[in-house]
Amino acid sequence: MSIRIGILGYGNLGRGVECAIRQNPDMELAAVFTRRDPKNVSILTEGAAVCHVSEAEEWKDRIDVMILCGGSATDLPEQTPEYAKLFNVVDSFDTHARIPEHFANVDQAAKEGGKIGIISVGWDPGLFSLNRMYANAILPEGNDYTFWGKGVSQGHSDALRRIDGVKDAKQYTIPVESALEAVRNGDNPELTTRQKHTRECFVVLEDGADAAKIEQEIKTMPNYFADYDTTVHFISEDELKANHSGIPHGGFVLRSGKTGWEKENSHIIEYSLKLDSNPEFTSSVIIAYARAAYRLHNEGQTGCKTVFDIAPAYLSSKSGEELRAALL
Amino acid sequence: MSIRIGILGYGNLGRGVECAIRQNPDMELAAVFTRRDPKNVSILTEGAAVCHVSEAEEWKDRIDVMILCGGSATDLPEQTPEYAKLFNVVDSFDTHARIPEHFANVDQAAKEGGKIGIISVGWDPGLFSLNRMYANAILPEGNDYTFWGKGVSQGHSDALRRIDGVKDAKQYTIPVESALEAVRNGDNPELTTRQKHTRECFVVLEDGADAAKIEQEIKTMPNYFADYDTTVHFISEDELKANHSGIPHGGFVLRSGKTGWEKENSHIIEYSLKLDSNPEFTSSVIIAYARAAYRLHNEGQTGCKTVFDIAPAYLSSKSGEELRAALL
Repeated sequence: MSIRIGILGYGNLGRGVECAIRQNPDMELAAVFTRRDPKNVSILTEGAAVCHVSEAEEWKDRIDVMILCGGSATDLPEQTPEYAKLFNVVDSFDTHARIPEHFANVDQAAKEGGKIGIISVGWDPGLFSLNRMYANAILPEGNDYTFWGKGVSQGHSDALRRIDGVKDAKQYTIPVESALEAVRNGDNPELTTRQKHTRECFVVLEDGADAAKIEQEIKTMPNYFADYDTTVHFISEDELKANHSGIPHGGFVLRSGKTGWEKENSHIIEYSLKLDSNPEFTSSVIIAYARAAYRLHNEGQTGCKTVFDIAPAYLSSKSGEELRAALL
Repeated sequence: MSIRIGILGYGNLGRGVECAIRQNPDMELAAVFTRRDPKNVSILTEGAAVCHVSEAEEWKDRIDVMILCGGSATDLPEQTPEYAKLFNVVDSFDTHARIPEHFANVDQAAKEGGKIGIISVGWDPGLFSLNRMYANAILPEGNDYTFWGKGVSQGHSDALRRIDGVKDAKQYTIPVESALEAVRNGDNPELTTRQKHTRECFVVLEDGADAAKIEQEIKTMPNYFADYDTTVHFISEDELKANHSGIPHGGFVLRSGKTGWEKENSHIIEYSLKLDSNPEFTSSVIIAYARAAYRLHNEGQTGCKTVFDIAPAYLSSKSGEELRAALL
């Protein structure tokens, strides 16, 4: 029998989850839940239902894992505990500082409901966290480095769009190659914010806007751009659509550590991602962890889990025998 | 209380384990067991015992995890099942084709003894296997690539030393940069053996040996060199000692996969290691899994496990709360 998946929230991430389900023959999409009028939401999967979010509870016994595709700022802190009482759930909560609090809320709700809730699944948090954790356990003496990009930062693009006179914009975060190389060489550099990443902005102006003033406003914007070397390109709306409508991302996690009786030997562990579509890749990670949620629940486990708590084999559709023979 | 570690076999790997224990304050070395006369084996750790391997059983209640540092060809197939009846054990069994059989033997023995046996721990098998598995679960449609090096291959160095007229030798396995780049670009190349790696040999000749004949013999040696582009350098014994006495290694695991409703988006997951000391790094991985063996046993679990079966958090000395706050 297939693992029956529900999707709550049908934006970029929800659509990514829908696509990922299609690539996993042991899964099927049961229903998509939306806050919009379901009549106005058309999905790709034949035979799957589109329902209003208020109907979700009625699907309690027809969905094995509900994927929560809302945002981390306001949706997930409410939704994940709420739905963890009713369903096994997976979310991609990515506000790093609030993870302990979110974990506690989801843990309580999931235990109450006898369900599994896996939080903060994706690539950062998610696969990058896993690699930081494995690398720290293996090389206890060393330094961690995380670089993001080249990729589109949604938050920074939004910040550009809020500026008066900006019609549309995209922002790319770019790791500084020389900093990456210094880490790879085992130099263990101490890197400032400016030394790690640059920011590149593609901006479409409203008619009559003052380009020089806007460029200045961008480059001095606190938190977002002031601490970085920022480049601003003013382009046409057509050019933005033609060349900057993708959502690529990626990055690098490195640990540089020492071993030996006198710490005489150096080692570099590096993990990197180069992603054409950030939401589709995140969705692919989520779907692998949905399989884990289903299995853990079938074993009688309950409560909140993170990527740290789940044995890798739970993610794979292959059996232990197959994994040992083919991938070990 | 510290986790009390035993080391069985005191070669490069055993010494690496000894060094790794020193970097993990929750562990202590209890004893080293050797097939040699213990009087002739001097170890680095003050206060730890050196015993003959025949005394191991007497340490049954004074060692929490025994690390088996023998070779995969003949030692481990016998030793791991034997000692898994008495101790929690970790080995680095690396004969990929025989892993299923080894797993079955260790599983039976460990269950009989009420112990945990973790096999095939290191970086390949080990961390590379983990990365292959995670990447396959996340991107079910795609291609896997593993490149090794630049590093010293013990097997190929031994093959060189067996040639008549060769006094000593070291062989480096080197990944072909252009092949790596093609994979990183998402070209999904089909690569022959020759296209993936080159082999570089540093050879010290016996007095009067025929260099041209030996070079020919190396380059045409079946299995080891015939299928590769091989370079041979004849050097002096002093030069070999000065420049080639390290045991560096490393490599790359990549998965190139597609997502999207029409598989329109490409993704590259890459994991790489650059290691000054192959045995010390392998030992560091083993020691993290020794912590896992200790904890799994304390939870009442028994039997054989691999890296696929163990939740990442078991490897870390940090608590779940600490991991979530610092590394997620």
